[in-house]
Amino acid sequence: MSERVLVKQLQSRADGPVSVSGWVETVRDQKKVQFVILRDETGAVQLVNPATRPAEDGTEQDASALALTDTISNLATGTFLTVQGELKHDERVKLGGVEIKIGGLDIAAAALPETPIAADSGLDKRMDWRFLDLRQRRNNLIFRVQTTLEHAMRSYWIERDYIEVHSPKLMASPSESNAELFEVPYFEEKTAYLAQSPQFFKQMAQVAGFGKIFEIAPAFRADPSFTSRHATEFTSIDAEISWVESHEDVARMQEQLLQTAIRTVKDKHGDEIEELFGLEVVVPEVPFPRIPLAEAREIVAARGYDIPRTDGDLDPEGERQIAAHVQETFGHQFVFITDYHPEIRAFYHMRDEETGLTKSYDLLFNGVEITTGAQREHRVDVLIEQAKEKGLDPEHLDFYLDFFRYGAPPHGGFGMGLARVLMLLLGQDSIREVTYLFRGPTRLAP
Amino acid sequence: MSERVLVKQLQSRADGPVSVSGWVETVRDQKKVQFVILRDETGAVQLVNPATRPAEDGTEQDASALALTDTISNLATGTFLTVQGELKHDERVKLGGVEIKIGGLDIAAAALPETPIAADSGLDKRMDWRFLDLRQRRNNLIFRVQTTLEHAMRSYWIERDYIEVHSPKLMASPSESNAELFEVPYFEEKTAYLAQSPQFFKQMAQVAGFGKIFEIAPAFRADPSFTSRHATEFTSIDAEISWVESHEDVARMQEQLLQTAIRTVKDKHGDEIEELFGLEVVVPEVPFPRIPLAEAREIVAARGYDIPRTDGDLDPEGERQIAAHVQETFGHQFVFITDYHPEIRAFYHMRDEETGLTKSYDLLFNGVEITTGAQREHRVDVLIEQAKEKGLDPEHLDFYLDFFRYGAPPHGGFGMGLARVLMLLLGQDSIREVTYLFRGPTRLAP
Repeated sequence: MSERVLVKQLQSRADGPVSVSGWVETVRDQKKVQFVILRDETGAVQLVNPATRPAEDGTEQDASALALTDTISNLATGTFLTVQGELKHDERVKLGGVEIKIGGLDIAAAALPETPIAADSGLDKRMDWRFLDLRQRRNNLIFRVQTTLEHAMRSYWIERDYIEVHSPKLMASPSESNAELFEVPYFEEKTAYLAQSPQFFKQMAQVAGFGKIFEIAPAFRADPSFTSRHATEFTSIDAEISWVESHEDVARMQEQLLQTAIRTVKDKHGDEIEELFGLEVVVPEVPFPRIPLAEAREIVAARGYDIPRTDGDLDPEGERQIAAHVQETFGHQFVFITDYHPEIRAFYHMRDEETGLTKSYDLLFNGVEITTGAQREHRVDVLIEQAKEKGLDPEHLDFYLDFFRYGAPPHGGFGMGLARVLMLLLGQDSIREVTYLFRGPTRLAP
Repeated sequence: MSERVLVKQLQSRADGPVSVSGWVETVRDQKKVQFVILRDETGAVQLVNPATRPAEDGTEQDASALALTDTISNLATGTFLTVQGELKHDERVKLGGVEIKIGGLDIAAAALPETPIAADSGLDKRMDWRFLDLRQRRNNLIFRVQTTLEHAMRSYWIERDYIEVHSPKLMASPSESNAELFEVPYFEEKTAYLAQSPQFFKQMAQVAGFGKIFEIAPAFRADPSFTSRHATEFTSIDAEISWVESHEDVARMQEQLLQTAIRTVKDKHGDEIEELFGLEVVVPEVPFPRIPLAEAREIVAARGYDIPRTDGDLDPEGERQIAAHVQETFGHQFVFITDYHPEIRAFYHMRDEETGLTKSYDLLFNGVEITTGAQREHRVDVLIEQAKEKGLDPEHLDFYLDFFRYGAPPHGGFGMGLARVLMLLLGQDSIREVTYLFRGPTRLAP
């Protein structure tokens, strides 16, 4: 068998014998000629076969030509096959200016004739048949963008001597709160909990003297909500660094990280994103705008939106309003909202000595929160006080508090939802569109 | 506050004022002079302070000098601090040829005076205090090696257009077998299972037309064993590629991947590994030796070891014997054992039409299995037959079998345990030594 050639390599290849492998996207079975669009992971190409039909007058025909025509007539969409044929450059062929005249074909696995979904099927139905849905060019591109985005982030960190950690997802106690927690029966009637975030363990790397670390890994929330932004399992991008003076050091790293990663995506996939998603990737300038929460609320109020929340935070519409303000004022898609009140932040967020507000931020991207970042409280006595204030029992947190009893550096970090970033980067309206296999309260399969 | 300088930067820096941050490794509190070894994530440096003690004759002393001396006398090991001082190059200082005369110090968080473990504490005790254990240079190096190894692998794949996927760890049905399965109570009295491997979902990427994919992510096994090679949660390195002709295509990719990754580790950390672990990293030559299982058993028998297993597989001692043979014969640390009988392989391994043996391999590294790889059966009717043969009910596998009903390419891949590779690369005798936070039947914390 001759060596497989990728579809993207055909244009620069000379006319002559060639072998391609992929799946059948469409078959146009005309009386005198048959066209097959074959797609592989790099593109699509037109295959052509001059049809040989049984002659009406009973004239004998070439048996193998008849068989080939018949095989092509019966090709179901989705069938994976290898085709040997003659490559020919032809400007008239819209699809890449090349065509392959089919010599022979070898079916790897035939598809059932009825494809259960179409490109315009509803999201839930597409998710039922996600393995077919992912064959769409747009969906394939989403995961190539994801690959590039993540690798650019990891490369940014590794060039700066960060250590990659894999923190455990099975824990003896909750990592964030007692709500939205998945329990796992463990050996001998013990109970484990699925990590809601790597929070405690990435802080542990700081007291272990690792300096700067990152992790990209699953996190789990038994979150019963059905919004476009929530999942019970999601990929969390986490970083944590020592010797920060405030959350500002974390924010500065994060904005550079995002700028670098989005630039890499634009360089590699910008044209294709424009073609398939109809939008231009914008490389954000640094520094990103920063607005204290109280000021953000005033801006939103001045725009005529009355935030119904009474806890002092923004709600989703408030986030969209402040994003619109930032876009109009600074021409920027990102904004750090800073200076949150301790009441609406986790107990481990450090507080500013003067204002009493937390040294933390949320990062909004096109009006949607993608990150919470903060300097962490590393002084164990203060940490215990703050935990008590939240009604937490320090005894239950003892394994975590121990981290800070044998020395600790000042440190901070952020957690960022990968699917949210991708959703916003590609102008999608749900994380389900950009998640390989979404998991929600009523969605565990495929 | 002046900018923090990393310890590794001190040698190339001119004498003068400097600020370093890290933790106290040792204090040598002599009557006339005090020495502190301060370590950060890049190295260790000697700090020095001419001690000022209360004069026995009552002479008044400089109060701040007295206070500084007193503070240093009371520094507990592990205390994190920032030190401002004067850098001085001095050949007589063994530790890097530099010294910092302490000007002032700023304690971030003081350690309790009694450190609960020492470098030579038992493994279990060190695991109880893993955040302190990780401060050891050796342990820090392990995770820098891990970082380099993984990034080199991902870079290898990304340069070859692989797509990175994040497959779900919550599943509606088991991914490997019904044994060793963690169950998770899910919404409304449903049950989810923790993924034992990404097997089904990385195969799904093949029928989705992704071509070549990889994933590095946690996998879970409710494995009650306490060996040095098993954990209930581990980091699995997985790849899967389309259009393979046999498991040989997978093996060729994997050996190149490992050669590239190990070469990168040797280039970046080879000297330090030699210093701290006393071993030379060997970059493996490709191709790795390949030995069919039946032949391997004969070789082991000829070496005088009688494998007690009756299922035809090697046992751990058999693996060590064959590794010794490979080292003696080929001077190689790796060997692919091939041609396993279907009885001792998963139902989805493809079988060779002539021999009836599976198109699969195990990869041994220094006598320990680190990988199973195989071509997968992509023909749904054959797959159903093979499942039945194993006593599996195809109905329970329906979501998986569906993947192959709408077209599928021939494909194959491997799964590799990160901790095993690290353990063997660094000559350690347990994966616990090279796992950030080990999880086992009796180990869920910290």
